[in-house]
Amino acid sequence: MLSNLDTPSLLVDADALGANIKLMSGHFANRHAKLRPHFKSHKCTTIAKMQMNAGAVGITCAKLGEAEVLATAGIKEILIANEIVGPLKVRRLIELSKRANPIVAADSADNLKMISDFATNAGATIRALIEVDVGQGRCGVAPGKAALELARFASTLPGIQFAGLQGYEGHVVDLRDEKERTEKTHAALKGLVDSRRLIENSGIPVQIVSGGGTGTYIINGDVEGIDEVQAGSYALMDWWYTDIRPEFRQAMSILVTVISRPRPNIAIIDVGRKGCGAEWGPPRVKTIPGAKIPSFNSEEHGTVHLPDGAGENLRVGDHIEIIPSHGCTTSNLYREFAVHRNGSVIDRWPIEASGTLQ
Amino acid sequence: MLSNLDTPSLLVDADALGANIKLMSGHFANRHAKLRPHFKSHKCTTIAKMQMNAGAVGITCAKLGEAEVLATAGIKEILIANEIVGPLKVRRLIELSKRANPIVAADSADNLKMISDFATNAGATIRALIEVDVGQGRCGVAPGKAALELARFASTLPGIQFAGLQGYEGHVVDLRDEKERTEKTHAALKGLVDSRRLIENSGIPVQIVSGGGTGTYIINGDVEGIDEVQAGSYALMDWWYTDIRPEFRQAMSILVTVISRPRPNIAIIDVGRKGCGAEWGPPRVKTIPGAKIPSFNSEEHGTVHLPDGAGENLRVGDHIEIIPSHGCTTSNLYREFAVHRNGSVIDRWPIEASGTLQ
Repeated sequence: MLSNLDTPSLLVDADALGANIKLMSGHFANRHAKLRPHFKSHKCTTIAKMQMNAGAVGITCAKLGEAEVLATAGIKEILIANEIVGPLKVRRLIELSKRANPIVAADSADNLKMISDFATNAGATIRALIEVDVGQGRCGVAPGKAALELARFASTLPGIQFAGLQGYEGHVVDLRDEKERTEKTHAALKGLVDSRRLIENSGIPVQIVSGGGTGTYIINGDVEGIDEVQAGSYALMDWWYTDIRPEFRQAMSILVTVISRPRPNIAIIDVGRKGCGAEWGPPRVKTIPGAKIPSFNSEEHGTVHLPDGAGENLRVGDHIEIIPSHGCTTSNLYREFAVHRNGSVIDRWPIEASGTLQ
Repeated sequence: MLSNLDTPSLLVDADALGANIKLMSGHFANRHAKLRPHFKSHKCTTIAKMQMNAGAVGITCAKLGEAEVLATAGIKEILIANEIVGPLKVRRLIELSKRANPIVAADSADNLKMISDFATNAGATIRALIEVDVGQGRCGVAPGKAALELARFASTLPGIQFAGLQGYEGHVVDLRDEKERTEKTHAALKGLVDSRRLIENSGIPVQIVSGGGTGTYIINGDVEGIDEVQAGSYALMDWWYTDIRPEFRQAMSILVTVISRPRPNIAIIDVGRKGCGAEWGPPRVKTIPGAKIPSFNSEEHGTVHLPDGAGENLRVGDHIEIIPSHGCTTSNLYREFAVHRNGSVIDRWPIEASGTLQ
């Protein structure tokens, strides 16, 4: 029973998760673009394997440490959608390539050169996507000529196999207005696809152009020239993504305990910033209609405002479920998911990549 | 050498930490009020032992799981400054009392009754502080009559030893203006000390009244009727507390790598929200004068804005140190501290209580 769990516990609704994986896999089943789900959202190899079994072409991750966890779990097709920089990490990347098939993102000649040198010394070849800045203003070279030049450079390196491009429209992926999100995503992707054509026209083959997220998978998946979508949040869903992609079910919640009832309309719960990713807003209360958490600034406490009448039967020791604004930063705070169906805990899944920062 | 560390790494400057512990211990050496440092800030038993060796009367913590970690490390005098609620946790608390001397906070009769019942069955007695809400609006009963009534109730319970009061002025502890902070702290503590007198005048002895933090230790430590101060941030210091308590040295930083240089005045670093507590603001850049991180919303990336000229020699692969706004939520994201002196790593200290949410 859920009521037998200690709190806070990070819950996964098995049926909702299953439905989300099925829905997303179904969307990509008959499309050119393929799904390579992002591991950073759940960091749990059990879920990654479910995604692979449902038809994903591989897994995307953000950190080399995550890729190592995936390889250890037997998942070989791994896109590290991030720059892997410096001799310590490049050595680890080469080691990883002996037991998996990693692809890395890169946006600088120096970095590509180092990877190539280390790979050549080890008799290895590393596949790389050139990261293109499609407007987010984070990593990536500019679309067009700069992308072509770096792709051409990568193609000349003996330890690198130039595999394509990556562009993440992170600046528009969570726009609330669907029309605006669609228009701006198309605008962002135009530079990415144009870069692809420029590179192909120069005689360099492009195998993979990867991008997108849960907020834009429908748009991205139908743009000609996009081969892979790296959505992650769809599996577990937080309230932020549920608001913009309601076709997916809320599978993640946090079971908490009321530890204090200082006033009739206030309940204090045993989770704060250390146990709930809240950078997109305070958590919502799942199990008490009308209850709200207006602000959420304590490390280990949350303050729930109860609607009139709701507090009459709510006592110290009672359980509540809350939903985080951001699932990715929440999974990272826990070591396991408690998996439930019909009110019973049916399994525990380790979150093996919790805290893999390096 | 620091430059040989993989990144991100959480650094502790050994000399700065030592100076901070010495300064705080010295402040309380000849006062009635004693120091019981808060473990939640570093979650590392090596540092807790240094604090005990410097004269602390015990350690404060926020979670039962933290208390268990402390007991395992041989630290027996533990204040869990939080309500321990529900049969699963109360059972663990009783178990803990067989190998340590825990004190818990409590603010409800039901909770005290459960602890007493479980303790009595196990032949144990648990010491409890009644938590008083001194204005923070979180846990705690109202000062005065409500505090007296709950103290009286606790005193009647066979498995509880009523030990005193706790009140945390969290609503004023980080006010930037020192005069305002001082006045409002005194106002908050008046209710706490008045409650103490009321209880003592009713014939119930009060051994410990505990409160305070790094922002208010000077004020609290000199209020008659306050016996213990539970400051925590002073040991490692983040930039938020350094701004208001500059007598302590900045001992905590995060070593990061520049992974991209997309524009002359922009450097992308390999840490984001998953590796740096930022709920009090973006991190500051320690090692490049004038560099700024205006916003900090990515999970695994930070965007550093460089002042004119600073970027000329900054390359992909270079290291930077940043300082988090909040140290407590940062320590919780790592598994160890890399301890350094004069540019060399001299030790690694496990953060044993990282992720102890329960």
